[in-house]
Amino acid sequence: MPVGTQATVKAITRRELLELNAQIVLCNAYHLYLRPGVEVIAGLGGLHEFMNWQRPLLTDSGGYQIFSLQSLRRVTDDGVTFRSHLDGSEHFFSPERAVEVQQAMGADIIMALDQPVGYPADRAATEQATERSDAWALRCRRAFRRDTGQALFGIIQGGMYADLRRRSAERIGALDWEGYAVGGLSVGEPKELTFEMLGHTVADLPEAAPRYLMGVGAPPDMLRAVAAGVDLFDCALPTRLGRNGAAYTSRGRLNLKNACYQRDPSPLDPECECPTCREHSLAYIRHLYKAGEILAARLVTYHNLHFYFGLMAGARQAIIAGEFARFLAHWERVYEE
Amino acid sequence: MPVGTQATVKAITRRELLELNAQIVLCNAYHLYLRPGVEVIAGLGGLHEFMNWQRPLLTDSGGYQIFSLQSLRRVTDDGVTFRSHLDGSEHFFSPERAVEVQQAMGADIIMALDQPVGYPADRAATEQATERSDAWALRCRRAFRRDTGQALFGIIQGGMYADLRRRSAERIGALDWEGYAVGGLSVGEPKELTFEMLGHTVADLPEAAPRYLMGVGAPPDMLRAVAAGVDLFDCALPTRLGRNGAAYTSRGRLNLKNACYQRDPSPLDPECECPTCREHSLAYIRHLYKAGEILAARLVTYHNLHFYFGLMAGARQAIIAGEFARFLAHWERVYEE
Repeated sequence: MPVGTQATVKAITRRELLELNAQIVLCNAYHLYLRPGVEVIAGLGGLHEFMNWQRPLLTDSGGYQIFSLQSLRRVTDDGVTFRSHLDGSEHFFSPERAVEVQQAMGADIIMALDQPVGYPADRAATEQATERSDAWALRCRRAFRRDTGQALFGIIQGGMYADLRRRSAERIGALDWEGYAVGGLSVGEPKELTFEMLGHTVADLPEAAPRYLMGVGAPPDMLRAVAAGVDLFDCALPTRLGRNGAAYTSRGRLNLKNACYQRDPSPLDPECECPTCREHSLAYIRHLYKAGEILAARLVTYHNLHFYFGLMAGARQAIIAGEFARFLAHWERVYEE
Repeated sequence: MPVGTQATVKAITRRELLELNAQIVLCNAYHLYLRPGVEVIAGLGGLHEFMNWQRPLLTDSGGYQIFSLQSLRRVTDDGVTFRSHLDGSEHFFSPERAVEVQQAMGADIIMALDQPVGYPADRAATEQATERSDAWALRCRRAFRRDTGQALFGIIQGGMYADLRRRSAERIGALDWEGYAVGGLSVGEPKELTFEMLGHTVADLPEAAPRYLMGVGAPPDMLRAVAAGVDLFDCALPTRLGRNGAAYTSRGRLNLKNACYQRDPSPLDPECECPTCREHSLAYIRHLYKAGEILAARLVTYHNLHFYFGLMAGARQAIIAGEFARFLAHWERVYEE
């Protein structure tokens, strides 16, 4: 899922997303609740209509933003009081309100409200936040109106503690969700720990429902997670790096600001078929970055999304062909440096 | 001519320029000489190849930038010494060097080096700068290599003094240019004075060669200049305003940041057929501006260029149909407010 925090995948139009064959876009309920506001979006016919995007949408509940954007005021078992990072105004999300807001916005998949913990976090704090997230998940499930055709995903927490992960997975897995999300990973911990915890989280989840690893990631990390049984990802890297001058290529990551590209007439990735690579040179794109031109962000964001979609399409083909291990090993090698 | 200062029309791709049917793009020799440098561009096959734009290009000589970007160090009859606004390095442009740089970059139309004056400027300063510009024009014409297939336009100055305008036009008109540019207008003077001076400047120019009014302008100003016999314009307004939240429409200029558009589901311009107007609402575009999203700049820049090209196409049709006076009166009324 390309990330469209503010109801736009940054620097990219809906036409381009269709051209790239994006199947689904992630938006952020926290940001859109604060601006333009749920009443504005609902009044205009919902998020699909607002963005003119008829394919699936997923909204993140806002839990992650509330707990990471320094907007937190108080958290109790009832819910969380937070301050707008835009105007300082105070707001309250209970699990019920988070579901209500997301249902009114109208995304196809909405997320339960959770309380993530950072890294490192001690066991007591992690256990308290996980217990609370599990209890909030149950309240979200109960508050969810089933007559809208929307889907609600539960989120499994547990920090970096195997037994807390397993207990959260068991509790969340016992409820009837349309999909299961793995939260609280890729928050600064070593990679080995990420995948150890991922293993504990997904081990006993129902096989038929999609599994969504939130906020991951870099190409080899996504593929390792696919090997662990994950189906769905969101990650701001291809768009964020696209704006900042880094490109994902068939030969690894490339920093377009490097002086070595100043006179380089070759494309960003000779193996890529996207318009950026077919029509423009490294020298030109580097110039656009140095000059601070919006076109640089456009060209490389488009290319990076094209790369990510191609990578995931390749993963699906490799799985079908029974060659996923080789596929994974290839990309781990390319992105090892 | 859409303005592509740094070898890109800001926020717009070459594909979109083709879709918009842009016939020619203006780039700036001053900016491109400083970054990425004439050797880089020439080494990559010239500006067309660098930008991957095969339709005509025009480069401005840099005179205007040198005298307006506070980079000026010294001006003598030999030429002008200036400081890079990027790194403070010192450079020298003689008329001959300005032609050499532009010929090496490879635009189809290149401009003589001139010394514009601001507004207000006293008669003595204006006369000195105009005399110098006229002398430089002759040196540019002599330095110009004719075997490249490029065209060189002379620039008429004279500030806000009718007799200086007429004398400059007479001198420049006596040389053998592929086209004639009117410089030093729209620099802060009252509109009536602009058109009075324009009249004095173009009165006796050869009819067969194109006339280019530099840096103008807003829709009614362009149309008034067409009525005065001008053929070619460049103006950063449609792209600059597009980035800053203002749109040109069939009903006048519209500020997308206005609160009244917060819940407005209608398009930016109901009479416009561009993708921005066909696919997005005022409410959505306003949200994108408020959120600081690149997509806002993209959507409105595209629309504004579409409007400008439509306006000029309409002017051509109106001239052919013998209805230009009515056409001009209509747009003066719309943009009067």
